[in-house]
Amino acid sequence: MTASANPAVESFHTQHAPFGAFASFSIGLVGSPGGFGQSLRGAGRQNVYVGYRTADRGALWQMLPFFRPPQSNEVAFTGADPGNSVAPSGFEMLEPARYERTLGWASDTWRAESGRFGFSLLSPFSQLPDPATLSRTAARFALAPVVTGWIEFDNRTGKTPVELMFGVGELDRLQRPVQDAGLDLPGFAVGPDFGYATARSSAVGQRLGFDVFAPKFRDYRGVHVIGGESALTFAVPAGQRKRFPLVLGFYQGADVTTGIPVRYAYAQFFKNLEDVLAHGLANRAKYEKIAAQRDRELARAKLDADQKFLVAQAAHSYLGSTELLWYKGKPLWVVNEGEYRMMNTFDLTVDQLFWELEWTPWAVRNVLDQFVDRYSYTDKIVAGGKLVPGGISFTHDMGVLNHFTPAGHSSYECDHLHGCFSHMTMEQLLNWVLCAVTYAEKTGDVKWLRRRQSVLLACAESMRRRDNPDPKKRDGVMKHDSARCGLDGSEITTYDSLDVSLGQARNNLYLSVKTLGAWVLLEQAFKRLGLKDDSAAARATADLLAKTVATKFEPDTQSFPAVFEKGNRSRIIPAVEGFVYPLYLGIKGATDRKGRFAALFDLLSKHLCGILQPGVCLDGKSGGWKMSSTSTNTWFSKIAISQHVVRELFPEAMTDAARAADRVHADWQRRPGCGEHAMCDQINSETGVTCGSRYYPRGVTTILWLRE
Amino acid sequence: MTASANPAVESFHTQHAPFGAFASFSIGLVGSPGGFGQSLRGAGRQNVYVGYRTADRGALWQMLPFFRPPQSNEVAFTGADPGNSVAPSGFEMLEPARYERTLGWASDTWRAESGRFGFSLLSPFSQLPDPATLSRTAARFALAPVVTGWIEFDNRTGKTPVELMFGVGELDRLQRPVQDAGLDLPGFAVGPDFGYATARSSAVGQRLGFDVFAPKFRDYRGVHVIGGESALTFAVPAGQRKRFPLVLGFYQGADVTTGIPVRYAYAQFFKNLEDVLAHGLANRAKYEKIAAQRDRELARAKLDADQKFLVAQAAHSYLGSTELLWYKGKPLWVVNEGEYRMMNTFDLTVDQLFWELEWTPWAVRNVLDQFVDRYSYTDKIVAGGKLVPGGISFTHDMGVLNHFTPAGHSSYECDHLHGCFSHMTMEQLLNWVLCAVTYAEKTGDVKWLRRRQSVLLACAESMRRRDNPDPKKRDGVMKHDSARCGLDGSEITTYDSLDVSLGQARNNLYLSVKTLGAWVLLEQAFKRLGLKDDSAAARATADLLAKTVATKFEPDTQSFPAVFEKGNRSRIIPAVEGFVYPLYLGIKGATDRKGRFAALFDLLSKHLCGILQPGVCLDGKSGGWKMSSTSTNTWFSKIAISQHVVRELFPEAMTDAARAADRVHADWQRRPGCGEHAMCDQINSETGVTCGSRYYPRGVTTILWLRE
Repeated sequence: MTASANPAVESFHTQHAPFGAFASFSIGLVGSPGGFGQSLRGAGRQNVYVGYRTADRGALWQMLPFFRPPQSNEVAFTGADPGNSVAPSGFEMLEPARYERTLGWASDTWRAESGRFGFSLLSPFSQLPDPATLSRTAARFALAPVVTGWIEFDNRTGKTPVELMFGVGELDRLQRPVQDAGLDLPGFAVGPDFGYATARSSAVGQRLGFDVFAPKFRDYRGVHVIGGESALTFAVPAGQRKRFPLVLGFYQGADVTTGIPVRYAYAQFFKNLEDVLAHGLANRAKYEKIAAQRDRELARAKLDADQKFLVAQAAHSYLGSTELLWYKGKPLWVVNEGEYRMMNTFDLTVDQLFWELEWTPWAVRNVLDQFVDRYSYTDKIVAGGKLVPGGISFTHDMGVLNHFTPAGHSSYECDHLHGCFSHMTMEQLLNWVLCAVTYAEKTGDVKWLRRRQSVLLACAESMRRRDNPDPKKRDGVMKHDSARCGLDGSEITTYDSLDVSLGQARNNLYLSVKTLGAWVLLEQAFKRLGLKDDSAAARATADLLAKTVATKFEPDTQSFPAVFEKGNRSRIIPAVEGFVYPLYLGIKGATDRKGRFAALFDLLSKHLCGILQPGVCLDGKSGGWKMSSTSTNTWFSKIAISQHVVRELFPEAMTDAARAADRVHADWQRRPGCGEHAMCDQINSETGVTCGSRYYPRGVTTILWLRE
Repeated sequence: MTASANPAVESFHTQHAPFGAFASFSIGLVGSPGGFGQSLRGAGRQNVYVGYRTADRGALWQMLPFFRPPQSNEVAFTGADPGNSVAPSGFEMLEPARYERTLGWASDTWRAESGRFGFSLLSPFSQLPDPATLSRTAARFALAPVVTGWIEFDNRTGKTPVELMFGVGELDRLQRPVQDAGLDLPGFAVGPDFGYATARSSAVGQRLGFDVFAPKFRDYRGVHVIGGESALTFAVPAGQRKRFPLVLGFYQGADVTTGIPVRYAYAQFFKNLEDVLAHGLANRAKYEKIAAQRDRELARAKLDADQKFLVAQAAHSYLGSTELLWYKGKPLWVVNEGEYRMMNTFDLTVDQLFWELEWTPWAVRNVLDQFVDRYSYTDKIVAGGKLVPGGISFTHDMGVLNHFTPAGHSSYECDHLHGCFSHMTMEQLLNWVLCAVTYAEKTGDVKWLRRRQSVLLACAESMRRRDNPDPKKRDGVMKHDSARCGLDGSEITTYDSLDVSLGQARNNLYLSVKTLGAWVLLEQAFKRLGLKDDSAAARATADLLAKTVATKFEPDTQSFPAVFEKGNRSRIIPAVEGFVYPLYLGIKGATDRKGRFAALFDLLSKHLCGILQPGVCLDGKSGGWKMSSTSTNTWFSKIAISQHVVRELFPEAMTDAARAADRVHADWQRRPGCGEHAMCDQINSETGVTCGSRYYPRGVTTILWLRE
């Protein structure tokens, strides 16, 4: 692992991903391969060759450090002793100090030779209407499984020609010229699955063989198809500045999923990989324009450089996890859960909500409908050791690695457990309510909300029953576990892998405040639907719950306990997470510090001021935010939400130390401890090394920062 | 690599492969994973769990050593320190001494506990008519991408129940119950691509999770879909003997090739993986019957145990390289070249000919037609430094790793070379002639031969011109290189990776005798076609060539030089390879020691008697056959052909030392030096370690032995 080499060096993979293709071209980790990856749980394993050759560098190729010099596969053919295999030479690996990398919101650019050499990959994204409504042309543009980019050199002051190189290499899967599949462009592909190309030009050379630096064997057209390592070269004459386009494409045309066997949406609009590559090249200017616009927007945002980096890196990993399928003539939306590859994990949907409502609001509705139609269930709950009717809820996810699990069941949740892998019935129930109402309020899609009115009402009833089946005994807090856990199990929250302070659902501070947020939203939604009584009842429950939570405050410590049971005294930041929804929707009554929840706000303010301190919820060693005072496992995407809520609602808690953590959080992600796996979520707050949730989409909660 | 652990232990992977699916389930190498592999260049990387648990073994699972205990992936979810990850326990890995393995022609069986435990995988093959002519039912039976097998325990003397296990595990690609795709059987699959199942039975249990030995987490149906490791368990009550069926299936439904984009033939007859698994299970008895028949045939053959092993192992690797595609309503046959995965390498076609004429003669014709229709070309040749018309020939191969190269060009051949990767124009020209005539004579398909009569005539003319463009100067030996090599290159033979003794085509002993064989066959074919003049001319050329070769004999050494140039004094066994074709076809006149080639036979006999000696063409250290006296790189498939020719035509050369080598050759293949890669072809004759051509189909030349 490169991580150990020099942990302070900026070194991280970034996923360069088309929208909805569950595919990435990953590069950036110093000294490491990457490249094309289809539905992987981490970066690919291809050598990536990017560099240039000038006369003043002794004619050695100057290469970005994104490959490991392969032992040539030549010996497998020549029968020679592998010990005598000559590794490629003729190049120098650029040390990180010799190049500069700039990650934009939709671009990633490397510069060297005082900026004269440049290489950039773009992954533009923009506001996309429901794909079901798109014209064929618009669909091709929006859904093309393509990443564009360019490579350039400013040789205006040069006296000799300069050569540029872009290529990839992998011995397990060989490459072939894209021309061989009828596309008259320079470029190479692996099977029908992925590849790259550039525009036709006399300046372009093609290399395919055992060694891209010194191809020994050339066939009638100058390549060796059995070689496995390929590159395009580009000649820049002395006295000129030249930029060459690059297109990287993916394609899977057949059913890719099981359980529900479906294809990618893009397969409706593209014939094959060559179609994708040709389209990408023809439309590259339009893609570049969008990428540049996104880059400008982020550059102009009122965020510090560390925050901007985090926003940019998060967007890239999110895109790499998106998967737009096509089922019975309609879009089917999936976000895969990073390294775990669980599909539409509801815990992520509710957090990525803020991102998706900006760019693809129909995706939120799509997932909510999937949850109702296939992944809802009605359970019983355990009350006094007996099973009594519970209510509707939703599964944790819809399957894993392109397998849709059977209706009503997730891939994750198991029975008879108290910790990780148990059921999250209450959590997912809240998630549906929060997503549904936030979607409808933000987009104004009251028509959809009305169509789902009965679900919303069932959710409210289900929430109440999980407090107490007996209306007279209710205080707003969830206290009854789903019978799906079994009599010997209990529900967990999304924070399952932290310590018990956040793991248990019953009597949980985080979940209680999230429940409060849900009731506030239900109050709003029922009002919108003209359901006055239900709205009033929701409001009353919210008020009751706020009061109940307030009673849990510990006067001695001036804090809330994480769990209202067994003398728990963990301190948690997500105590305020539940307020992000009313805050996002601008529900003033519920977010006014002097309004109906003033008493609770005052206590939460004390709580936050007390815990956002070094040694409590700021890590004593690193200074990073810790979700829980008693766990060194902290989650970046959740930090981002909390930061937003704290800065907006509880600014008094933002001490200098709390503010300084932006740098810490960014360093975690851009150093090899996380950077090996692109965006990471679960991080050891002492070391900055990821401990789970690698290659992860959820960092896009950072989009909330752009609202501040 | 396990190879270094104990090189003397019997330890080898075997490919268990359906016909024509370019897929294998590989297991057998001690201490190594294997499992399902689709179009790979070596064994898969899955843990394979096969074992049993009895009370008298302390209830520990007794496992065949075909997996590496995985660090549980649980920690990736729980955020725990990977250092604290608990590797699976509750099992013992069986030492090789504790089990017995029997490889049959179409089966591979492991026994332990004095034979009470048994596990077997079957890969039946049989004489198959042209798939274009098969009924749907027959096609489904013949082309099903399925491997069947069984697992059993004889617990008749047991006092407690016994459990059996079969499973696989891989973290990169997770598994799912096959039921979820609508097949009501116990079993698991990876995506839509491959999987395994058994028959429904109350004795069968299903495990899917992080750890098959002690699944900690179970969902509503007892599995954990995110886990990545799966197994079926089978209960055998005390007092009973029980055998349970296993089916292992593959499926790829979309186009798998580029250049010519086509699908597997089986995709015409099977809907998906579940269809394959259900079919395999329903038809297992029929498949078992065929496998048993093949096993019996080999067992009864007049071969020693080492030879039988070699015949059996070869058949398995051959099947794993076969690929039957379906193009415009007709079969398109490909054999992939082992680790190189070049398609229909003609050097292999001509050797696998003897196998394919037994089981799938239409496959030979299919490839010959492909060579004519897409992979033939007409070149010029170099004569006196000038380019003059050459004639028809054929490419070395048709592409690589499912990519069909452009018409008229191989993936392998490059220009301007003298050694490896140069053109093989003369070699492939001979290969077409030899395959075409052998096919037509063996099958009696004169109709096809007549359709290809013009090609055959063009081949004869092309052969003559490569001798000398001037008919008056001809002596039968190829002396002019194809202009495809360039003026600075020269043709090579198939023995490219051996030393120059076999590499150069021009004035080459091996190629001259092979040319002689081709003229003998052309004489026969032209006669069959009623082309009397051409037949007579072919006969005359054969006689001329035989005389020419005889003049190359060195009276001082009583041997032939490998190359009739530059004082070469290497000694080669394939001096007699070219006689295998007339021998196979029973062309008496050409194989009678006292017939028309008597003089040449006498000299070749002296040659063979002189070189089949330790230190010359029997390796001084190992005793194995060496193709060339001056190279330690020897090729098993070619040894097998030579052995056949020597035993049949030159029995006087079979000394005890030459005969004893069967054991050596078998040990090479069944020890880790080769065994890691199933059947290997290029082997270091001193060490027995493979130096190329791994996972290789060509060992089926051993089928010639069954004719002795």
